[in-house]
Amino acid sequence: MYTVKSINKLVKEFSNLPGIGEKSAQRLVFFISRTSKEYGKRLIEAIREVMEKVKYCSVCGSVTESDPCPICQDRTRDKSIICVVEEPWDVFVFEKTGKFRGLYHVLGGAISPTKGMNPQDINIGGLLKRVKTHKIREVILATDPNTDGQATALYIAKLLKGRGISVTRLGMGLPVGGDLEFADEDTLSHALEGRRAM
Amino acid sequence: MYTVKSINKLVKEFSNLPGIGEKSAQRLVFFISRTSKEYGKRLIEAIREVMEKVKYCSVCGSVTESDPCPICQDRTRDKSIICVVEEPWDVFVFEKTGKFRGLYHVLGGAISPTKGMNPQDINIGGLLKRVKTHKIREVILATDPNTDGQATALYIAKLLKGRGISVTRLGMGLPVGGDLEFADEDTLSHALEGRRAM
Repeated sequence: MYTVKSINKLVKEFSNLPGIGEKSAQRLVFFISRTSKEYGKRLIEAIREVMEKVKYCSVCGSVTESDPCPICQDRTRDKSIICVVEEPWDVFVFEKTGKFRGLYHVLGGAISPTKGMNPQDINIGGLLKRVKTHKIREVILATDPNTDGQATALYIAKLLKGRGISVTRLGMGLPVGGDLEFADEDTLSHALEGRRAM
Repeated sequence: MYTVKSINKLVKEFSNLPGIGEKSAQRLVFFISRTSKEYGKRLIEAIREVMEKVKYCSVCGSVTESDPCPICQDRTRDKSIICVVEEPWDVFVFEKTGKFRGLYHVLGGAISPTKGMNPQDINIGGLLKRVKTHKIREVILATDPNTDGQATALYIAKLLKGRGISVTRLGMGLPVGGDLEFADEDTLSHALEGRRAM
């Protein structure tokens, strides 16, 4: 079969990225093979920068260039509320809303017996330590609204019981802007349970 | 809004790639931010290599590390048949089948009035030159089976008329492995027209 060595190599490396199959990888590689030298340089430099500068915050576990991260260092934020999420990018999703002024705790995954993820594989210990050593008023369990996320939330909720902390879970219901006819039964059940007076 | 500068920068650069939206770019960047240093180095090196080594074949217009490309230089290939495709990656698709032993000609696009692509914007001139200066028996017009590809094939077929060259188009019909119920009307019409005795 006819191949170009350097193209094959990059297709292989791109295929290691999440959500990039062989076909998408090929598309990317051919694009890069004919893009401008400037773009190529910028892309390489940007990848190198992320590899070099981005680290985990030793307090909340989110990604950051400084440790502790700007959120953990921000004196204007409410240090008595911790929002617990699975992954660092969940922090960015919350920050985009601009509605949360507390701190975060990134677990680095969810408990999942099917994927071999046990409670000790995610950063629950760090959360318990923070709860013990700081005056925490509320812990919002914002793990994903799926089976693993729910199981993780229940597990952590149990551990936090009896400490005088309000433990909450994000409201589940219909997504804003969605169509009722596309809502699945579980979502609709949650929406019904969580209905509010108008 | 809380952001990490180097992450934002790479998200922006990744979003320039074809088929990568902001969400996918974020996913890729977070993956890279926590992948191994070795993978990051390999990825950067592979991008650099493609940028440095890959060029266009001066004969057929495909991507290659040597000019002319290995296919154009291959003495065992049938130099009297040219398969005309839109993009370099189409060459790789054909080569994967292992069924074509002729040469290629990459147009670098298709005629598309809606996209402002005129006949002079794609490499038809190079094809006519090859046809004039070499003994060509057949030209297979393997442009994409869509409106632009069809228009391009018709345009080139007209130019090649009366030169004693057999001009053919790829057979259109049902994709192998597909389901009849998912076939669109145009495809099914072509499949009917192109039916064969069993």
